[in-house]
Amino acid sequence: MGGDIGPRVTIPASIKALEQDPMLSVLLFGDSQQILPLLENLSSALQERIKVCHCTKVVDNSQDLSYALRHSKGTSMRLAIEAVQKGEAQACVSAGNTGALMGLAKILLQPLKGIERPALVSLIPTINGDRSVMLDLGANIDCSAQNLYQFALMGAIFAESCLGLVYPRIALLNIGIEEIKGHKSIREAATLLKQNPALNYIGFIEGDLLLNGKADVIVNDGFAGNIALKTLEGAAKNVISLFKGHSTLNKTNHICKFIGRWFVKTFLLKGSFQRLRQINPDQYNGATLIGLTAVVVKSHGSANIDGFAYAILDAAQQARYNLPEKILAGLEK
Amino acid sequence: MGGDIGPRVTIPASIKALEQDPMLSVLLFGDSQQILPLLENLSSALQERIKVCHCTKVVDNSQDLSYALRHSKGTSMRLAIEAVQKGEAQACVSAGNTGALMGLAKILLQPLKGIERPALVSLIPTINGDRSVMLDLGANIDCSAQNLYQFALMGAIFAESCLGLVYPRIALLNIGIEEIKGHKSIREAATLLKQNPALNYIGFIEGDLLLNGKADVIVNDGFAGNIALKTLEGAAKNVISLFKGHSTLNKTNHICKFIGRWFVKTFLLKGSFQRLRQINPDQYNGATLIGLTAVVVKSHGSANIDGFAYAILDAAQQARYNLPEKILAGLEK
Repeated sequence: MGGDIGPRVTIPASIKALEQDPMLSVLLFGDSQQILPLLENLSSALQERIKVCHCTKVVDNSQDLSYALRHSKGTSMRLAIEAVQKGEAQACVSAGNTGALMGLAKILLQPLKGIERPALVSLIPTINGDRSVMLDLGANIDCSAQNLYQFALMGAIFAESCLGLVYPRIALLNIGIEEIKGHKSIREAATLLKQNPALNYIGFIEGDLLLNGKADVIVNDGFAGNIALKTLEGAAKNVISLFKGHSTLNKTNHICKFIGRWFVKTFLLKGSFQRLRQINPDQYNGATLIGLTAVVVKSHGSANIDGFAYAILDAAQQARYNLPEKILAGLEK
Repeated sequence: MGGDIGPRVTIPASIKALEQDPMLSVLLFGDSQQILPLLENLSSALQERIKVCHCTKVVDNSQDLSYALRHSKGTSMRLAIEAVQKGEAQACVSAGNTGALMGLAKILLQPLKGIERPALVSLIPTINGDRSVMLDLGANIDCSAQNLYQFALMGAIFAESCLGLVYPRIALLNIGIEEIKGHKSIREAATLLKQNPALNYIGFIEGDLLLNGKADVIVNDGFAGNIALKTLEGAAKNVISLFKGHSTLNKTNHICKFIGRWFVKTFLLKGSFQRLRQINPDQYNGATLIGLTAVVVKSHGSANIDGFAYAILDAAQQARYNLPEKILAGLEK
């Protein structure tokens, strides 16, 4: 029940997801006084697929991470992850603090065997209508060469499983394509990737080619990945808002609306599981914490109802797809 | 005479700059056998403002930086910087290797008193038609809190001098706006910035708001800055190329061309010295190495003729404007 807006978004989003996915049922962790009024007018069929687990405590965003984790007992985020740990739920979705979600998920759900650090992974659209896998998007701000190498491994399996790709092309995000460019960790990760013939490592990629489909898997530390993804989102959002009706556009408003719709459509991003998402970050929401023994999906803190519903549907599909088991099997190969 | 394309771009660009700026004269460092044929049909008035300084050696991009610097004697890049050092030229423009340019400029031209590390600075356009100053854009990939603090100081003086701003708003690029977010160096730089009442520090900024004019000066290490800038450039380039004629757009081609032109116009970036530049990186070229005792401008390696001409004109204006002296005076205040 975290996120920037809270139950006013997450409850209608949950209802929307239940309507769209008839096999889904949800446990809602949060303040029942806030939640129950939002469920009042539902059909009994939908009511039966919702269980409200009352709690009032939330993870404290203003404290540093280790304090927040030490004092997380009884928070909605921790209870939701514990429900997955106990097998009461098959996936957890949260719009709360990324660091706390990662920290609690690592403690309670454990990383997969051999994985030092789980990572945040998402799909990004490409100009030719395909999608690329990008990780880490903010879970690990400092990464060793070994971490980056493991992200590449997991990203490749994710691309194979979710996008159906064979021998996906892997690139490391860097500030140049020459071998001498970038942080030592990136250069060493390149060496590790080259040594594994099972991986299709194609070299460094720069920020200007992120949308060009040059690589199927783009690997970076969480700081660079978060900066790049948010910069892309901001650029897309600005362009869309310009087309929706910039003040200087009054004269050409009907054309702009047309082009705006076309732009959104051109950049349509097919979800990893046959759903459509848009590059517009309002509509394109949910990054998976990959490398854990269970499915955990992080929603944007500021996601709207559609966005949070997408994250829930995505989590459900990943659980049905046994994504963690698929990753583990791929790692063991 | 470096850069990805060489004299075929840099010579026509120099001629273009000479035509546009009647006070300008240029020294061209490179292979006279390649350069002289490109100058043959020029008027004698233009010929008189060009001096060709023959050399055939170039900085070796394939070697690591320290090797390249040790073996730089007699290269076109080093000779050009030495000309500035000797007072034969007032500014140096290069499309060569950024690291080598920074390294040689630091050795030969020296950083300004009190500046540990010069930085690459450029202007970025904002959605409301203004501009923001952004630094570092790739000269220093690892930065201490003190480095970032000095970048903020120099960026603020640059914004005051070149954009005419009073008390420019300074922000640090980060992956969240909460105080606990990001690398330790960024958090410590925030503390340093808050302690200086002469600086208008407004907090962290995320990648999605880079174009929104929330800050006049955006400060980051060279790795994050380079990733963010190139990502912005790539997004803009892709949108523009889509509007120029995507295969799916044939039916709406005339509308798209119209909107494409409008987009480029809306994102027009007024140059720091009353010239217009576009967000399209082909047209928007030249970052200044700020914090040195003389003017050094780095062009994109892949700049076209217009782009390289812009970089030359910009360097000339900065030299006339005594930008290094202005930065020094600001630092001493």
